[in-house]
Amino acid sequence: MPDTKVYLLDGGSLVIDGYHVYWNKGPAGEVRFPVYSILVEQGDTRMLVDTGFDYDHVMRVLPFEKPMQTKEQTIPGALAKLGLTPKDVGIVFNSHFHFDHCGGNRFFLHAKKFCHRLEVPQACNPEVFEHLGYSDLAFSVEACEARGMTDQIPEGATRENTRFEGVDGDVEILPGVHMIFTPGHSIGHYSMLVKFARRRPMLFTIDCAYTQKSLETLCQAGFHIDPVAGVRSMRRIRALAEEHDAELFYSHDMANWQGYRKAPEFYA
Amino acid sequence: MPDTKVYLLDGGSLVIDGYHVYWNKGPAGEVRFPVYSILVEQGDTRMLVDTGFDYDHVMRVLPFEKPMQTKEQTIPGALAKLGLTPKDVGIVFNSHFHFDHCGGNRFFLHAKKFCHRLEVPQACNPEVFEHLGYSDLAFSVEACEARGMTDQIPEGATRENTRFEGVDGDVEILPGVHMIFTPGHSIGHYSMLVKFARRRPMLFTIDCAYTQKSLETLCQAGFHIDPVAGVRSMRRIRALAEEHDAELFYSHDMANWQGYRKAPEFYA
Repeated sequence: MPDTKVYLLDGGSLVIDGYHVYWNKGPAGEVRFPVYSILVEQGDTRMLVDTGFDYDHVMRVLPFEKPMQTKEQTIPGALAKLGLTPKDVGIVFNSHFHFDHCGGNRFFLHAKKFCHRLEVPQACNPEVFEHLGYSDLAFSVEACEARGMTDQIPEGATRENTRFEGVDGDVEILPGVHMIFTPGHSIGHYSMLVKFARRRPMLFTIDCAYTQKSLETLCQAGFHIDPVAGVRSMRRIRALAEEHDAELFYSHDMANWQGYRKAPEFYA
Repeated sequence: MPDTKVYLLDGGSLVIDGYHVYWNKGPAGEVRFPVYSILVEQGDTRMLVDTGFDYDHVMRVLPFEKPMQTKEQTIPGALAKLGLTPKDVGIVFNSHFHFDHCGGNRFFLHAKKFCHRLEVPQACNPEVFEHLGYSDLAFSVEACEARGMTDQIPEGATRENTRFEGVDGDVEILPGVHMIFTPGHSIGHYSMLVKFARRRPMLFTIDCAYTQKSLETLCQAGFHIDPVAGVRSMRRIRALAEEHDAELFYSHDMANWQGYRKAPEFYA
């Protein structure tokens, strides 16, 4: 097992309703939640899982989510705190393409990019209830063209340099870094299990469970495409945590987020 | 085409949140909505589609839905206004088994009963997010036993006299009375199209679309098992309404309900 370091890159925060966080349960009311990306480092190899939200996109398309994001909370700003630039990241893996997970993809035209094989087609042709989720299409020239939103194509982006390698099922992208297929929230959603030489594994639920309470009560987010799969995926995450004695990290849990180590600190 | 009369039996009202009525859209806030059953009469043949909610059940299990139901709004009370008793109804068809659609089934132990073939199994073994929906199990001894809720078995009910004939796909139960398979809200959900000799067809969305706005915006209820199927079902209802120039009737739309003819008035 190579030496692995995991950095959590603070990406700012957004607001949604309690009924979005806890499907049909709520209670109603504004909930501000954190957004972050995960940088996995093995020697000179760096993989970024998700890229946060793009402030301008949210202000233009979903201003009611009241984005807060400092310069340090953009992807370049967060990497700069580590003495890095986007060019130092060779691999990007998007857990899915909701706007708060791919907003910084435009900085990685040079990188090798992965996602589930169904996520780009879904962003190109989303369900009617997924249009806002898949509203920031700058990650893919193909998606911008399919949706007639070519004004979103970033400078320098081409079909070629925004192409993804589509994967399926569980995949070990780097040694000990396991992407766990957990559909439900989106059609091709991934969680991540990272194993270390000298510490407990980290299990990132990503949006399979926004919060600890989500996972404990099996109450998924209001945003989903297949709630039956969503419950099955949460049960799988619970089983994996048990099996590997893994430490769980939730995607949008403000209370837990306060206690996480943020970059430049890291887990190793 | 036989002479067909359709009576809407007022069953009282309940309260849910705006986020339950309009999935992820809301807005939040209490929404009081009507519950009704549909009596189809052809000569001496009477079929009841759905049986409303049981006041005591709602008060015991979901009092936060603030049930309002007079004696006239119970199934026997509503039938009495027509000079009928439950014994005059030979056929019951449940669109699905959420508690507000099967609460009066206990009055129809004598009747021939139909539902989609997957609805009883689902009520016996619901998804974790369906437990409250499928909480009134008095319609089926089998379901009561499967869920360990034998205290709900009504007096005189047996496995035999609470047995359903399970159907699949679209079925014409009586001449001109078409049950339209519209899954999504529940696994085996049915809508209904009634054709007449001398008036426009009536198309009952049932819970495929709670309200006119639901159908117009393709925004299904927060309660669902398969939202992709739910959208497809709503599109199918819109196409059927167009094809048959049918008059649409929504299940839980207070504004439209005000304008509907209620029993003892009828449509013919």
